Amino acid sequence: MCESSAYLVQDGKEELILENVEELFNEGDKVKIINLFGDQKIIDAELKKISFVDNKIIFEKRDTSGG
Amino acid sequence: MCESSAYLVQDGKEELILENVEELFNEGDKVKIINLFGDQKIIDAELKKISFVDNKIIFEKRDTSGG
Repeated sequence: MCESSAYLVQDGKEELILENVEELFNEGDKVKIINLFGDQKIIDAELKKISFVDNKIIFEKRDTSGG
Repeated sequence: MCESSAYLVQDGKEELILENVEELFNEGDKVKIINLFGDQKIIDAELKKISFVDNKIIFEKRDTSGG
């Protein structure tokens, strides 16, 4: 079983978004992930890295200018 | 062992790019993948989908406008 856990990195900290991710879809600006329970999340952040050894998916918040 | 195989979809056909991929790095326009033998490839295509069940990474050539 190779399901992975998805994390969002913010301010240098990893925040768990979803465990047991089975599928990931890149949908332009956003990324959809679905886990083995059918839970899905739309991630409004940039996919940075995936480790198929550690079973980790790392997202990072985009720099938004202004604000 | 959860290494995956990376494929490029062109004209509806899946072309194998690299097997036994351990790590994937999103580098803006390009994606770098590294396998367990240390082979790396820079993919100039869009990451479309990853299945952690089928251990498949799917890239798709971008539509390039103009000739």
